[in-house]
Amino acid sequence: MQTITVNLAENSYDIVIAPGSLEQLSSRMKELNLGKKVLVVSNPEIFDYYGKATIQSLETAGFEVCTHLIPAGETHKTLQSIEKIYDTALENYLERSSTLIALGGGVIGDMTGFAAATWLRGVNFVQVPTSLLAIVDASVGGKTGVNHPKGKNLIGAFYQPKLVAINPLVLKTLPEREFRAGMAEVIKYGVIWDADLFAKLEQAERLDSLDYLGEELLQTIITRSCQAKADVVSKDEKEVGLRAILNYGHTIGHAIESLTEYELFIHGEAIAIGMVAAGKIAVSLGIWTKEEAKRQDDVIIKTKLPTKIPADLDTEAILEILKGDKKVKASKVRFILPTKIGTVTITDKVTPEIITEAIKAVISEH
Amino acid sequence: MQTITVNLAENSYDIVIAPGSLEQLSSRMKELNLGKKVLVVSNPEIFDYYGKATIQSLETAGFEVCTHLIPAGETHKTLQSIEKIYDTALENYLERSSTLIALGGGVIGDMTGFAAATWLRGVNFVQVPTSLLAIVDASVGGKTGVNHPKGKNLIGAFYQPKLVAINPLVLKTLPEREFRAGMAEVIKYGVIWDADLFAKLEQAERLDSLDYLGEELLQTIITRSCQAKADVVSKDEKEVGLRAILNYGHTIGHAIESLTEYELFIHGEAIAIGMVAAGKIAVSLGIWTKEEAKRQDDVIIKTKLPTKIPADLDTEAILEILKGDKKVKASKVRFILPTKIGTVTITDKVTPEIITEAIKAVISEH
Repeated sequence: MQTITVNLAENSYDIVIAPGSLEQLSSRMKELNLGKKVLVVSNPEIFDYYGKATIQSLETAGFEVCTHLIPAGETHKTLQSIEKIYDTALENYLERSSTLIALGGGVIGDMTGFAAATWLRGVNFVQVPTSLLAIVDASVGGKTGVNHPKGKNLIGAFYQPKLVAINPLVLKTLPEREFRAGMAEVIKYGVIWDADLFAKLEQAERLDSLDYLGEELLQTIITRSCQAKADVVSKDEKEVGLRAILNYGHTIGHAIESLTEYELFIHGEAIAIGMVAAGKIAVSLGIWTKEEAKRQDDVIIKTKLPTKIPADLDTEAILEILKGDKKVKASKVRFILPTKIGTVTITDKVTPEIITEAIKAVISEH
Repeated sequence: MQTITVNLAENSYDIVIAPGSLEQLSSRMKELNLGKKVLVVSNPEIFDYYGKATIQSLETAGFEVCTHLIPAGETHKTLQSIEKIYDTALENYLERSSTLIALGGGVIGDMTGFAAATWLRGVNFVQVPTSLLAIVDASVGGKTGVNHPKGKNLIGAFYQPKLVAINPLVLKTLPEREFRAGMAEVIKYGVIWDADLFAKLEQAERLDSLDYLGEELLQTIITRSCQAKADVVSKDEKEVGLRAILNYGHTIGHAIESLTEYELFIHGEAIAIGMVAAGKIAVSLGIWTKEEAKRQDDVIIKTKLPTKIPADLDTEAILEILKGDKKVKASKVRFILPTKIGTVTITDKVTPEIITEAIKAVISEH
C-alpha cells in the first residue's frame, strides 16, 4: 500500500493506493470521523461491478448507505444531474456531517464533488476513481464541475476530498480506449514534471493496453502521476500560477473536443493531439528541441493515441474557441509549453500565426 | 469612515462603512487588483436607485461593466436564476480575474455570491448591500446560496467576498417593514454576543423606523453588528462550532417561514418570533432568567416586530420541519439558547415536549 498526502493546510488529505483499498474505505472513513450517512454516486455499469462490495464494506462498518445512479457519459454532466443528486440527498436526510462518495470515472467524480461542495454549503467528499483518467487526474486536486451548454466545466468549485481510495485492479474492467486516454495524462506528467516517469514510459515496449504493462509499471504510473499532481496542487491549490501547467495540451485539446462536439474524441485523445500541437508551438518558438518533441510524439504514438485531427476541421474555428476558453487571461491565449522533458513554461506570447501553423501540422492529409 | 477586517487568513477582507462607500468602490477595487471586467448583479428597483452611480464610478475608474438584473423576491432565489447569471457571464467573456458585484439585499447577495463561487470555479466577488438585513448579516461571512424547492439555502457554498462596501445612506430608500426585519438580526447580535449593543437598543426610545434612530445610533448598530459577525466568522468560518450561534432564533424561525410558505413573514420577522420562542425554551430549561427573556421580548416589541404566529399553524408540522432542517446533527435538533444577555450556548438536549410548549406559547389566541 502506498499513501500520498496532498498538503493543503486544513484541507490536506491522503491518496491511498492499494489493491484492497475498496475494502479499506470504510475503516479509513471511520478514522476520519466522516459522519454516519453516506450517499454513493455512481453510474449503472460501474455500480454493477463495484457497488455491492462498496456498500457491503460501508454497511458492515456501521454506515447508513444510500445510492444515486447517473447514466454514463459527458452529456449527463449537467446542472440538471446535480439537482437530482440534491433530491436524493434531501430524501435521505443527509446532514453537513454526511459523506458523498464518487464511485466512478472523471464525470462521476466531477459531479459528485460539485454536489458535495454545494449541498448544505459543503458535505464530506470521498473519491473512489475507477478509470485511469480519474485515478491519475480527476480524483486529485479538488477541481469539481459540470458543463454549461456552451462549454466544458464552466460551472464548478474547488473542493477537496477527505480521502481518495485507489484500487489499481479496477482498471481490469476498463475499456482499452479509455485506458489509453488515461495514459495521455500520464504522458503529460512525464513531459511537464517528471522526466524519470517519462523515461520509464519510453523504455516500455508497449503502452497501448493494460495487458502489456506489468504490475510494477502500472504501480509506478499511478503513484508518480498522483505524486506529480499532488506536488503541483499543494503549491497552488486555486490555480493562481503554477497549477496551470497541468493544462498542458488542454488549450488546443479542449478546442478540438468542443469543435467535434465531444463525439469524435474522448478527453485524453484530444489532449494527446493538444500535446502534439503544443510541442510544435514550442519548437516554432525555439524553446524546445525538435528531437525532444519527437520523443514525446513517439510515446503518444506507442500508446496508440491519435496525433491528428480530421482534415475537415476549420482552423479558424479552433482559434475562435481558444478566445472563449476559461484559461484565457485578459483576452490573450495562454499556452503551457515544454522547454525540456520534465519542465514547462507558461506564455501568452504565441501569435495567432504560430497557433494556426501548429494546428495545420496536426491536420490529417486529405 | 470605519473599516472592519474579517480575519480569515488568505481569505481576509475589509468591510468599509462610509456614506461615500459607493463612490470609493472603484478605487478600492483597483487597489485590490480585481481585474478589468465587472458584472453588476441587482434587481430592477435597487438598480433604478443606485445602478447609474455605481456603473459610472466603475467605468470612470477604467472597469468594463456589464449588468444582470433579477426580479426582486425570494421566489427568484433559484438555481434557474443562477443559470441566467452564468449566461450573462459567458456572453460578456468574464474571466477568472473578473468580478461579480452584488448590488442589493440578501437575496441578490446570496445569489451573486453563489454564482461567483461557481462560475469558472470561482471569480472575484464584491458586496454592496442595500438593505439593513444584508448590511448586518448577509454581506458578512461568506455564506452564499439558493433555495431548493423543498428548503431555503439548501444549495450553496462558503465563499468570501474580496470587499464589502456599506453606505448607511442607502437605508433611506428601504421600506420600513424591511428595516424592522433587519433590526431583528441586530437584536440577535445584542443577545448572543454584544451586551453593550443590546443596552443601546434598550435605551433607544423607538426602534421601529430609521427616522427615529439618529445617525449615531445607526452607525453604532451597523458597526457593532458587522463587528459581532466578523468576530464570530473569523473564529469559525465553516460553521464547525461557534458560528452556529448566529443561527439563534433561526431554527424555529426557518420552520415558521417554511410552513407559511415564505408569504406571511419576511425573514427577520420570522427570526423575531424564533428568538421569542428560543427565549422561552431557555427559560423552561432553567438556563435563562424570565426577566432577561422579557427584556429581549420588549426590545423586539419596541421594534414593532411580530412575536406571535397565526393560531391555525400546526405545531406538529413545525416539529416535522425541524427534523429536516440542515442544522440538524445526527438527527437531533440543535438549539442556540441564551444564558444571559450577550452569551448563548448550543444544545441538542431540548425535548420535543419543551419545543412544543414554546411553540404553543408564541401562538396567537383564537
